[in-house]
This record gives sequence, structure tokens and C-alpha cells, in this order.
Amino acid sequence: MNAVPAAAVGILAGGGPLPAKVAEAAKAAGQPVFIIGFEGFAEPDVIAPWPHECVRLGAAGRMLSLLRAHGCTELVLIGPIRRPSLRSLCPDSEGARILARLGKALFAGDDGLLAALVRILGEEGFHVRGAHEFLSHSVVKPGVLGRYVPDAHAQADIRHGVMVAQALGRLDIGQGCVVQNGVVLAVEAMEGTDAMLARSGACRQPGEGGVLVKLLKPGQEKRADMPTLGPVTVRNAHAAGLRGIAFEAGNTLLTDRSECQAEADRLGMFLIAIDPATYGATPA
Amino acid sequence: MNAVPAAAVGILAGGGPLPAKVAEAAKAAGQPVFIIGFEGFAEPDVIAPWPHECVRLGAAGRMLSLLRAHGCTELVLIGPIRRPSLRSLCPDSEGARILARLGKALFAGDDGLLAALVRILGEEGFHVRGAHEFLSHSVVKPGVLGRYVPDAHAQADIRHGVMVAQALGRLDIGQGCVVQNGVVLAVEAMEGTDAMLARSGACRQPGEGGVLVKLLKPGQEKRADMPTLGPVTVRNAHAAGLRGIAFEAGNTLLTDRSECQAEADRLGMFLIAIDPATYGATPA
Repeated sequence: MNAVPAAAVGILAGGGPLPAKVAEAAKAAGQPVFIIGFEGFAEPDVIAPWPHECVRLGAAGRMLSLLRAHGCTELVLIGPIRRPSLRSLCPDSEGARILARLGKALFAGDDGLLAALVRILGEEGFHVRGAHEFLSHSVVKPGVLGRYVPDAHAQADIRHGVMVAQALGRLDIGQGCVVQNGVVLAVEAMEGTDAMLARSGACRQPGEGGVLVKLLKPGQEKRADMPTLGPVTVRNAHAAGLRGIAFEAGNTLLTDRSECQAEADRLGMFLIAIDPATYGATPA
Repeated sequence: MNAVPAAAVGILAGGGPLPAKVAEAAKAAGQPVFIIGFEGFAEPDVIAPWPHECVRLGAAGRMLSLLRAHGCTELVLIGPIRRPSLRSLCPDSEGARILARLGKALFAGDDGLLAALVRILGEEGFHVRGAHEFLSHSVVKPGVLGRYVPDAHAQADIRHGVMVAQALGRLDIGQGCVVQNGVVLAVEAMEGTDAMLARSGACRQPGEGGVLVKLLKPGQEKRADMPTLGPVTVRNAHAAGLRGIAFEAGNTLLTDRSECQAEADRLGMFLIAIDPATYGATPA
């Protein structure tokens, strides 16, 4: 009797270090891995050690046949990708069919578009899994990471930020905001967290302090677009003069948990994983 | 019998051309004018033709005695000012007393702070008037300015933007957002409209189009902080690839109405003054 072979995992890789971390975790679980690196987004050094091919975003036909040829039945979408213009996409014939199936979702916010992509990949016979299912160490429970704890002043800013981020999330605008002394300095939409942090530094208000709050949007497809936080975010928040970062427990991927914590400790900042359902409601 | 002398108008001037326009309108109405130009904000060329003094933001004592010495009983606050840090404010003794009276409002959003300032100036015996009371030509009724009219696609983006801007306004975050194909590209907080427009150009999405929507915040003190729109806004919106601008009828100051309209016509953009209460609700 032969053992049932483990399902191969296809990793659709955007930028950053996480595609390799998912690959490591899948390999450790005994699953073969094949990486599709999206041209212009996936970092060559990150995917080079793994079986991989680089594919244009629009080349869906080539992507699907590579995944099938390598026996991938499970898929993980991981790493940031900039939404391309339709003109720059140059879809192959399978890509054009998928664009047609996406239809109106192409003109929806990210939530709607990514949810439609996950649905179509499911219809193509793949089981789409979330990166957090592989990276359990990168997702943390509520609590403080590192040495620094938000004081009452910072807690008040976090509560205000949670309320604002939830309102933004309900409108599918973005995941984050920066709050200082109860004033919203900046709100994240398409530009991303690092650009928001950069301008927050220039908009600082009377007094000290300031926090970054980053939450999952209520309708956000966790299997395609989970909030991430890395050491660069910690350094950029410090450069903007902030005292710490509050992020959603269970729903944020730390690209490098120990380095995030080490950087926060070195810079004198707090890192706190919160449950927004309870954090906003009850003064801590 | 002597005629009752007209009340002198004190203009507390931030940046831009509007302080001079308020001065012209007051003079045309037969009222003497005295301008307090805030150092670092008021433009010397704008206030030079008028009786004026330049005063540091923190020098409230000097400001109040100048206003009283020139017989000002009415005040107008006009032109943008960046919220200073407490440390850079260096208040004089009257300034310190006003800071103490502002108290908690110093750590509120702009709405709360400006409302508190207007209240304190009232308690000091001044009648604070809105710039729009002088600049009736700069405030427009609902309707299109110029040759271009938003099509159904742009109208849908405007309706989405109205919904988003109202939600942002209720949270005292900001006045504006940029929407393209139903996707919110950027949201304005402390950085101002021009900075938001600049990054919108870099965040463009598949397809054409895009609109800037700018509304009064529901709690906003019109006498201290009315949304403004000038030819530079029109040019920046065009540089960001947008098709037009929707702004709140009756609650937006056009710094130069005819040049705004001429620029929009030249660049092929629409300018539409809307009533958000009806625009958002009924598809046009």
C-alpha cells in the first residue's frame, strides 16, 4: 500500500520575505512547494532557493498550467502586489477569460476584487489557503510584545484609532491610521502604511506621542490580503515620532516577529496586539 | 447729528489671497479694516496694501491690544495656518491665559480647537464673522461651473466620495477624498488637499477617471475653517489625472472663482457645486 502523497502547495508570490517563509513552513509540514513569482513584485533572492517560475500578472494561462504541471492543489497568495492598470496587464487568453469572470469586481475596492479572485481560483479546482494557516508563529495573541507598554495617554489614542480604523474598514478604504492626542494625523488608503507614516512625521501636533493603529477591514479576504507588519514598519513609525504600534491580534502577519520585537525594544516603542472588539469598548 | 461710524473689521490672516479679498469687501461695505498677519503664514504681498501688523501666533496679548487700538469690534479668521507645536508657540502672558482657557480643546481635533477659539474671542467682546459673509461671490449655489459636466461614471464616483467624506467628516478627520471607479484612492487628514492629490496620481487604478470630493465637516466651525478651492487645486487635480472636482455648494470659498472656472475649462475638467444631502441620496 502506498502512502497518500501530500498535496503540493503553489505559492503566488508578491514582494517581501513572506513567500519564502510560507515555503519553509509547507516543506516542514511535508508538502512539496512551487512558487509563482509575479514579475516586478516577487523578490528574486527570496524565491531563488525554491522551485519557481516568474510570470507576468496578466499571464494567467501560463500560471494555471505551471501550477497544474507541478501538482499544486493548494494555493497561497502572499506578499504585496500593486494593483496594475488594465492597459499594463496584457492578459493572455486565459487571463482575458478570468478578467471577464471578474467583471464588475475589477471596478470594486480591493476587498471585492480579491474575494472574486479567490472564488475563481476555487472554481478552477484549487483550495486557497491563508498564509496565516502556515505561519502560525507570525500571528500573535492579544498582548504586548517586548519591553514597552502603552501608558494611559497612548491607550486613549489607540482607542480613538480603533474607532477610526473600523469606520475606514467598513468603507473598504484602508487598514490604518495615525492618531496623536486624539487627532487623526493621517489615514491610509491606496498609498500603503509606509507612505502614511512618512507624512505623519510632517503633520505632528502640539505635544508628544502618537500611535499607528492597523486593523483587518471587516470585509477583508484574509486568504489574499492580510495586514502585515515588519521591522521596517517599526523603524518608519519611530522615524515619524510615534510611541508605538497597535495591530489586530490573530489577523496580522509579522514578517519577522523577533526582529520586530528587537527593533521596538531598541527604539523604546511599544508593540501591542489588540482585539478591536474589546479594546475600543472598555477603557483599559 | 453724527452718523454712527461703521464697525472696524479685524482680519486675522493666514496664508493665501483671501485676507485681501475680505479686506476689499469690508472696505466696499464702508467698514475700516485692520489686518493681523500671522508670522510665517500671512503672505507679505497680500497684506502690504492694507493697514496691518505682523504678529506671532503666540502673541495673543499684542494681537488683542492692536485690534482694540484700531477699534475693531468684528473679527474674521481667514487663510490657512498650520497648527503649531506648543513648544514653538512661545505665548505672551495673554497668550498663556488663552491657552489655559482653551484647556482640553488644545488636544481636540481642529473642529473642537477652532470652535473654542471663536468662543473665547466672543467672550473678549469681538463679534466673529465668517469670511463667507463678506465674500458672497466666492460661495456658489448648486450647479456646474464652466463647460464640462460629470457623466454617469463620474457621478457615481462623486456619490461614493460624498458618502466617504461625510463619514470622515463625522469623525473630524478631514474634508476630502479622491475616488476612481468606486475605489477610494486617498483620504485627506492633516496633510491637506494638495498633498492628497499628489499621491492620488501615484495610486491610480485600472481604467480612467477619478474625482476629488471636498465637503464641510458636519461639526466644522465655518467662521474659522471653511473649505477653500483655488486654481492651484484645479491644476493639481488635473495633474493627478482626475476628471473633475465636486465641492459643497454654499460651504466652500473659491479663492478666485473666474480663474477656477477658466482653468477647469482649459484643462477639460468639471467643477460642480453639490448639496451633499441630496447628491448622495438620489442617483442623478
